[in-house]
Amino acid sequence: MLKVGIVGGTGYTGVELLRLLAQHPEADVQVITSRSEAGMPVAQMFPNLRGRFDLAFSVPDTRQLGQCDVVFFATPHGVAQAMMAELLATGTRAIDLSADFRIRDIALWEKWYGQQHASPDLAQEAVYGLAEVNREAIRSARLVACAGCYPTAVQLGFLPLLEAGLVKPDSLIANAASGVSGAGRQAKLDMLFAEVSGSYKAYASAGHRHLPEIEQGLRLMQPAGAAQLELTFVPHLVPMVRGIHATLYADLLDTSVDLQALYERRYAGEYFVDVLPAGSHPETRTVSGSNHCRIAIVRPQGRNKVVVMSVIDNLTKGASGQAVQIMNIMQGLPEQTGLENLAMLP
Amino acid sequence: MLKVGIVGGTGYTGVELLRLLAQHPEADVQVITSRSEAGMPVAQMFPNLRGRFDLAFSVPDTRQLGQCDVVFFATPHGVAQAMMAELLATGTRAIDLSADFRIRDIALWEKWYGQQHASPDLAQEAVYGLAEVNREAIRSARLVACAGCYPTAVQLGFLPLLEAGLVKPDSLIANAASGVSGAGRQAKLDMLFAEVSGSYKAYASAGHRHLPEIEQGLRLMQPAGAAQLELTFVPHLVPMVRGIHATLYADLLDTSVDLQALYERRYAGEYFVDVLPAGSHPETRTVSGSNHCRIAIVRPQGRNKVVVMSVIDNLTKGASGQAVQIMNIMQGLPEQTGLENLAMLP
Amino acid sequence: MLKVGIVGGTGYTGVELLRLLAQHPEADVQVITSRSEAGMPVAQMFPNLRGRFDLAFSVPDTRQLGQCDVVFFATPHGVAQAMMAELLATGTRAIDLSADFRIRDIALWEKWYGQQHASPDLAQEAVYGLAEVNREAIRSARLVACAGCYPTAVQLGFLPLLEAGLVKPDSLIANAASGVSGAGRQAKLDMLFAEVSGSYKAYASAGHRHLPEIEQGLRLMQPAGAAQLELTFVPHLVPMVRGIHATLYADLLDTSVDLQALYERRYAGEYFVDVLPAGSHPETRTVSGSNHCRIAIVRPQGRNKVVVMSVIDNLTKGASGQAVQIMNIMQGLPEQTGLENLAMLP
Amino acid sequence: MLKVGIVGGTGYTGVELLRLLAQHPEADVQVITSRSEAGMPVAQMFPNLRGRFDLAFSVPDTRQLGQCDVVFFATPHGVAQAMMAELLATGTRAIDLSADFRIRDIALWEKWYGQQHASPDLAQEAVYGLAEVNREAIRSARLVACAGCYPTAVQLGFLPLLEAGLVKPDSLIANAASGVSGAGRQAKLDMLFAEVSGSYKAYASAGHRHLPEIEQGLRLMQPAGAAQLELTFVPHLVPMVRGIHATLYADLLDTSVDLQALYERRYAGEYFVDVLPAGSHPETRTVSGSNHCRIAIVRPQGRNKVVVMSVIDNLTKGASGQAVQIMNIMQGLPEQTGLENLAMLP
Repeated sequence: MLKVGIVGGTGYTGVELLRLLAQHPEADVQVITSRSEAGMPVAQMFPNLRGRFDLAFSVPDTRQLGQCDVVFFATPHGVAQAMMAELLATGTRAIDLSADFRIRDIALWEKWYGQQHASPDLAQEAVYGLAEVNREAIRSARLVACAGCYPTAVQLGFLPLLEAGLVKPDSLIANAASGVSGAGRQAKLDMLFAEVSGSYKAYASAGHRHLPEIEQGLRLMQPAGAAQLELTFVPHLVPMVRGIHATLYADLLDTSVDLQALYERRYAGEYFVDVLPAGSHPETRTVSGSNHCRIAIVRPQGRNKVVVMSVIDNLTKGASGQAVQIMNIMQGLPEQTGLENLAMLP
Repeated sequence: MLKVGIVGGTGYTGVELLRLLAQHPEADVQVITSRSEAGMPVAQMFPNLRGRFDLAFSVPDTRQLGQCDVVFFATPHGVAQAMMAELLATGTRAIDLSADFRIRDIALWEKWYGQQHASPDLAQEAVYGLAEVNREAIRSARLVACAGCYPTAVQLGFLPLLEAGLVKPDSLIANAASGVSGAGRQAKLDMLFAEVSGSYKAYASAGHRHLPEIEQGLRLMQPAGAAQLELTFVPHLVPMVRGIHATLYADLLDTSVDLQALYERRYAGEYFVDVLPAGSHPETRTVSGSNHCRIAIVRPQGRNKVVVMSVIDNLTKGASGQAVQIMNIMQGLPEQTGLENLAMLP
Repeated sequence: MLKVGIVGGTGYTGVELLRLLAQHPEADVQVITSRSEAGMPVAQMFPNLRGRFDLAFSVPDTRQLGQCDVVFFATPHGVAQAMMAELLATGTRAIDLSADFRIRDIALWEKWYGQQHASPDLAQEAVYGLAEVNREAIRSARLVACAGCYPTAVQLGFLPLLEAGLVKPDSLIANAASGVSGAGRQAKLDMLFAEVSGSYKAYASAGHRHLPEIEQGLRLMQPAGAAQLELTFVPHLVPMVRGIHATLYADLLDTSVDLQALYERRYAGEYFVDVLPAGSHPETRTVSGSNHCRIAIVRPQGRNKVVVMSVIDNLTKGASGQAVQIMNIMQGLPEQTGLENLAMLP
Repeated sequence: MLKVGIVGGTGYTGVELLRLLAQHPEADVQVITSRSEAGMPVAQMFPNLRGRFDLAFSVPDTRQLGQCDVVFFATPHGVAQAMMAELLATGTRAIDLSADFRIRDIALWEKWYGQQHASPDLAQEAVYGLAEVNREAIRSARLVACAGCYPTAVQLGFLPLLEAGLVKPDSLIANAASGVSGAGRQAKLDMLFAEVSGSYKAYASAGHRHLPEIEQGLRLMQPAGAAQLELTFVPHLVPMVRGIHATLYADLLDTSVDLQALYERRYAGEYFVDVLPAGSHPETRTVSGSNHCRIAIVRPQGRNKVVVMSVIDNLTKGASGQAVQIMNIMQGLPEQTGLENLAMLP
């Protein structure tokens, strides 16, 4: 039984971690921290957990966390980088769901996040946590920086095309749409039901913090010598709670390739990536609460633009489910352990 | 491993059964029937099941169904009563999710359902499937008629009050609200998203088919000699997919009883009934996809009316989860086997 | 052209007033105040108003407001009572949408609102603003305290029954359901889309601030000499933006009366109250953005309980539309002036 | 007072026409037809219209319709083309909201709509109904074919860029998202609330019927001699009732132009097109029920791709509001007559 700690469990990725770990046969959550809610039973804050967790939030304590086999950070950016060196010194291993260690280029991180990075060395050591790309490095990592929600959907969608060098590097567009849980469990006026319901909008079109993370990841997929790609990324807000749908566009350099076969081949061994039959359209609800990514590919009107549709649950494959998948890999467990729940339909 | 058959799997209770049974360690779905969709793979109709079921719908065949240990009926009323005698003759056991065998008084059934009952004898034999009331009889039943969705929420809410003889028999009101999945997977104009979204209404206020079922159940809870109770039942439609919330009202005959303690005591041993702390309000989302019923009790302003709030997921504890709970009891398995999924929050 | 001022225009009742007054042929909004947003153009905060209002929010100034013919208060409770005496001294007339002047019994107000009342004399002078009950007094009032949202739906629903003395005074129940805009435009965690969507719950079941207001109003409708009535009031939160649905229950003292005819007769001359044909169920969407109240009556199973269903838009007939209706009455305009918009469907 | 007829009033564009015309000071609806619902009062089918229309649906009769000044067709494709010649012969004028007369190339129409065109000559005569492009021709037209919903949002969004010849002709992408009312008032399984709520998906990515209409319109905007443009168009379904959001992408040929100024200049005189300040993101709710199109332009990261966001209400500016705007132009009325309603917020 793995001893598990969670730093910062009061947000949506925190309660999603608890839900998944409650159903994980090999994990035992021993510590969950929150400075502001110390003493409050987790099942009082999140009544869906009633009867399954006696645990209460506690003040973070590196020594106590250090006795865990693995520690998840479900914190806003800035927190993990401040605690990480001390925590890793205890010998435990860490999985960070925040943006702290995702970007290698520290100057770039500091530009987009508007603060100095407190732990640039660990940012170099950290393994980027997208199992379908980085499985081997994750196995032995001390510190894994889980891929973000949009970055997961976009990277899994473009991966086969980029590895095969099939698209014009400056033509990439990711038109993405997310449910509101992506904005976190914070009292923001523009996330009120009365503001979001019955409406749809783009946001951060001039530049979203996930752009540098996605571009970094996509560029690593390009064949050696390819011109560095550029991505146009426009996120949108959908009046739903969970789910990301990325609609990806690129100009094909070669229209003779069987794209459906390419995708099916690339993802044949991936338990959590499901390439739909030709002609399908993935729906976000089919992955709600599950750790799957579903993908479809189409070439409209037989022209030279390819369209890829990729859906995930932003809190599961886009955050806490991905983190559990990574824990399974790090601990040598079958990758789907505790992650076999199906989405509800309807 | 139990061999399981499902008759009529194309509706919402059918796909919910499949979702739950896919996660049940002791059940193996071997047959799922649909006349209209015979040949279609279930995972094509319900993509949340992709990768977990190779099964296709088949034409119902009593001999094939008879080889199962247990057969669920997830059909509109009228279907199970037509097939049941022949099916039970094979020696299998049946769990009917429809309304066919819920009402003992055949004339009453025929009045509310507007057709002749095809199997009145089996309606007498059938055990009413609400485990918290009828557990022992279910254990050895050949045929169980699962309680309906509204009836489950209302009966569990009133049960401790009625057993204790605490309320005026003609004062009972059930003001209930349901998500739209209760209307089933049928192309009805008034269930379109554009008709339901952003609106709320009562329906069937003059008389809903669940009224006689609920009154039958509640009357059986009354102490011997009590005046026969009458229920006023008004259902409402909520713009959400899953969930029932019953707000129950009654006049107290005795205001000296500690109602919170009464409810906690009555449900102390019930895994699936969760009495919330005093002052709480149950939310339907905390039971979404789970088999729990959550209940709170209040006496507003210390007056003589008691208010009980009871929530379930209409497709889980109100239908398919209840059916799996009943299967577990019939087969001597721990009652919660395969039913330990937690609701997602958010 | 009436000169109109609005105190506190940054909330949902404020923007609803602006929407309605923009379409009112006899009203010209000259001042709209907000301490926190002084200087911000209203159309920047509320883009639906773009092109129709050049106005910006300004710091409240009694002298400037006093130059208006009528001043609306769309403020939290406590604000109007602090400014009202000084404002009325200028000779203008005021319509308060808050709870400050709705309750005559000052001790009762202070108990429910948890603060000392700053202007008890004006609370005695204020006319309660429910035109269908108080039209004559409104005509000449200096200060009108608009009825609250739940109180409007519940009082219009019970009115004909109470005036006729047809129901048992201690049997009244109001099971009400509201869209989330009733909670106002404030950044509250439990009003986030991710918290509200797909769920339904009761709240404040032990006692809601609208209870004393409703009971005061209902008691004034009782025939002289009747036993003082008591109401059980349980509000619920619906995942929709606008709309209140009150489902009202009472025990009939006389079941020989034609209730449908009673209601039609009582409301025959009321432009904004629409009694539906027998057998109907009002939907909140049919009054969304309109100033109508739609009502249906039923006696389920011919038993002795009557059920009334009453719907309004909480921001229109339950707040800003009602306030404009009252302005029209005070100013001698046809009551429906500027209030003839129809609800959208779908 | 204009005498108005409506053919096919039982759908969502029909009831939206009625809502708008009820509030139009110069229009009087005299006939509304429906074969299937002949005799049913319109206010019984659409209770939001209660008290405002005594009219009942009648069987279509060309002679009776011919006595109107203007006749709207709110019918599925195929209906208007069958009746139009006979109707126009009466001397009335017609505004068709369906797709029957939008495409000049009859072979193209027949390919996408899968049937033979019954009135190819009138398809040549018909004026395309997008006032911001075609105002002069509309003034004197006998027959106007209103632009479709997606086509309106996409064409108004691209118009200034194309007229100025600023974008690469084969680089155009329209990633559009629509509320479900676009699917019409028809009992379709996949438009049920339980199927749509909480989910998001693309559809018809391989080819949607609005593609040829949009490409025809966009090509007419190109400067003489420009290479014929190609559009990649992917529509998506949003869990909301009304609203279209088009996110448009193109490669700029010239990055030195002030795009914000270009758009503001082009639309300076257009009452119904609102160019938002730089840095804004239009929300669909700000145009809900109104006839406005709101547009924002951005060049992400200062790169060479331009992104335009364009929102309309699919039933208003995308259908019935546009039709009333066109009626106003044809009849010499101020263009905004009867169309000054503001969107509700929230």
